[in-house]
Parts: sequence; C-alpha cells; structure tokens
Amino acid sequence: MTENEKGISQAVIGRLPRYFRYLGELRDAGVERISSQDLSELMKVTASQIRQDFNNFGGFGQQGYGYNVEYLYREIGKILGLDQTHNFIIVGSGNLGRALGNYLNFERRGFLLKGMFDQNPDVIGSTVRGVKIMPMEEMERFVRENDIDIAVLTLPKTSAVGVADKLAQNGIKAIWNFAHVDLNLPKGIQVENVHLSDSLMKLSYNLTRYRKEQEE
Amino acid sequence: MTENEKGISQAVIGRLPRYFRYLGELRDAGVERISSQDLSELMKVTASQIRQDFNNFGGFGQQGYGYNVEYLYREIGKILGLDQTHNFIIVGSGNLGRALGNYLNFERRGFLLKGMFDQNPDVIGSTVRGVKIMPMEEMERFVRENDIDIAVLTLPKTSAVGVADKLAQNGIKAIWNFAHVDLNLPKGIQVENVHLSDSLMKLSYNLTRYRKEQEE
Repeated sequence: MTENEKGISQAVIGRLPRYFRYLGELRDAGVERISSQDLSELMKVTASQIRQDFNNFGGFGQQGYGYNVEYLYREIGKILGLDQTHNFIIVGSGNLGRALGNYLNFERRGFLLKGMFDQNPDVIGSTVRGVKIMPMEEMERFVRENDIDIAVLTLPKTSAVGVADKLAQNGIKAIWNFAHVDLNLPKGIQVENVHLSDSLMKLSYNLTRYRKEQEE
Repeated sequence: MTENEKGISQAVIGRLPRYFRYLGELRDAGVERISSQDLSELMKVTASQIRQDFNNFGGFGQQGYGYNVEYLYREIGKILGLDQTHNFIIVGSGNLGRALGNYLNFERRGFLLKGMFDQNPDVIGSTVRGVKIMPMEEMERFVRENDIDIAVLTLPKTSAVGVADKLAQNGIKAIWNFAHVDLNLPKGIQVENVHLSDSLMKLSYNLTRYRKEQEE
C-alpha cells in the first residue's frame, strides 16, 4: 500500500468498481489506450474527477497519450483485492440468498461460495450450484474451519444482529449485510450494507418530487 | 413542496430512509418524543447533521422537548412518497427478480407488484405471490394500460439498455436498475441503481486494505 492510499475517502472507493467495470468493457472491446478526456465522456464524470480519483493511487502513469487500459484495469482490480480469492458463506437461504448464491459473476471475481445456512428444515440439505445448505447450528464451526472471510447476511433483521455477533466471535472479517438493520461490530470487521428498501424509498422520493414539480 | 425542498442534495435524500426506519422502530416501541441528541446517539450521526438534514424540510418543529416521533415518522414518509401507492413491474424473473417479487415489505410501503416478465418459456405462466410471469412481448402494452410507475430491471446487462428504452417510450416514470450497466434515459425518468457487484468490490477493498494495514 502506498503512503497516500491510507485515508482515502469511501466516496473515492465507491467509485472504483465503476472504473473497473468500464475499463473491463474497454479491454474486452480491444481498446488499448484511453485519455482521461475520452474516459470522462464515456463515464459522464469530469476528467478532473478521474485524475483526482486516480491520484489517490499514484496516478497510474497517465501520459500525453492516455492510460494503458489493460494496466489500469489490472491495477484497479488489485486495489480492489480482486487478484486474491475470498471464501464466503451465505447466511439465510431464502429467495435473495439463493439468488446471490447463483450469481456466477462473483466467482469470476474471486469470491468463492463455500457454504450456505438456514434454519428452515425444508431447505436444509438442498444445494445451490453444488453448495449445500446447512443448519444454522453448524455455521460457527464451519467459519472457523474453512477460512471464511466474508459472510453474506440475507436473513430477517430480528436474527441478523445475533448472527453477526456469532460470526464476529468466530473470526469473520467482512459482512455483506442485506438485513434491514445496522450492525455494530468490533472495529476491524468490514461491513457493507445493501438496504434494498432504502434504495426503493430514494427512488420513490425522486419520483414524487418530480411529479410535484411538474404540477406546479 | 416547500420552497427549500427544491435542490436538496441526493446525499440528504439518501439518509431519509434511514431516519424513517429508526423512527418507525421508535414508534413501534411506543416512544412518543425524542431529542435530536438521543436520536443522534441511537443512529450514530451528529445531532447537528440531523438538524441540518431536517432543516431542508422546514425542521419538523423541534422544540426544547424534542421531536414528536409519530409526526416526524409520518412527515418523512410523506416526503418519501410513501403516503401514495405505486404500481410496479419486475422485468427479468430469474432468482433475483423472484426474490424481489416475494418481498412483502415493499407492499406494506405502498409498492404494488402488478406484473412480472421474462423471455424464458420455462417460467412464463408461473406465478409469484399470485402475480403472473408474462412474455416480454407483452411488457409495453401492459405498462401503458396498467398505470405502471416503476419497473424493476433484474435482467442481464446485454438486454437491460434496450428494455429500458422501450419502458421509457411507453411512459414508465422510474427504473430500479439491478442490471450491471448504466442507463441513459430521458431526463424526467428517475433511475436508482443497485450494482451488487460494485458493492461487493467495495467490501473487498476495505477487507484487503485492513489486512495490509495489519501486516505493516
């Protein structure tokens, strides 16, 4: 990690995956070099924003003739930790948990599904892409014994807090939280929330406001 | 809409659903009034942030003795457009589409699932909570004839752009986009993106950075 990589704002971090996505598409399309100006037009952000964001990581050697797409793609991938593999489990094997378990793209990025858990006897024992759904009682041991980095929480908010605490006690390093509740975990355990209801409400706000503006 | 409700930043809007969630829980717990100080401790944001956010909407009458929880909950709900109902469809009825279709909480907030669509003959004709999965060819007519406000896009990025354009041509007002691609739609159509891969990569970044910091 370079000295200036410390203390990078979460806003910058939040934009990295989007750069990664666009650069991957450019690479797949056979583009070898791109200027910050062209990247700016493609991504609809200012060229100065792009340069500022990249300067957090040393700038990636933009020359007069632009960025090397393959190099930039690979470097951003490394910064995102995608050059390593991460074992993960899914806790809560209802519709959403199974949908995420079936999402092949995660595997392509190095996220390997190792186990799924649920308390519903009707789903325990069935499989998602060859991965078995196990009873909740086995979760703690499984996390300890299988080098699990990430737990995906797709369970009701009433049980999410208790489950997250158990995961923390058993050495989990990161939680991708889809439960509709904020988790308070020891510092050092990374949490990324996906609150789908919040996202839908934000859409509803923008829809409602636009309608009111039209009526005025 | 009050005069100062115009031009409210998306960052403030993005925080409203979280206020709404906490106030709903306080209300359900029978709490009648809460000071910005107590709300601040509960939500782990500063009291001054809370007051600033609320001042965008006229302040909600905080007095010496705090906010009225029920009133504040209802007012924020109104701002979010949750006092109205919104008809929505789901386009793409794979695992994720079906997971969202089964999510009852959306209905409690006034989002009414009216139809689902897919191109896969194996799923066309089956139902999710009584709502039929229809062939893609019927989508445009359905949107026009059934007062559909919101379309949820849970389909591959290759088809998402074309489908979004068709929805726009047929009067859709908002798109909740789960496809891993940015949509360019006419101004006036609200788009809220949920890029799950981006969220997972952000988690991966924080996990990787923390690990490096520990090693140093």
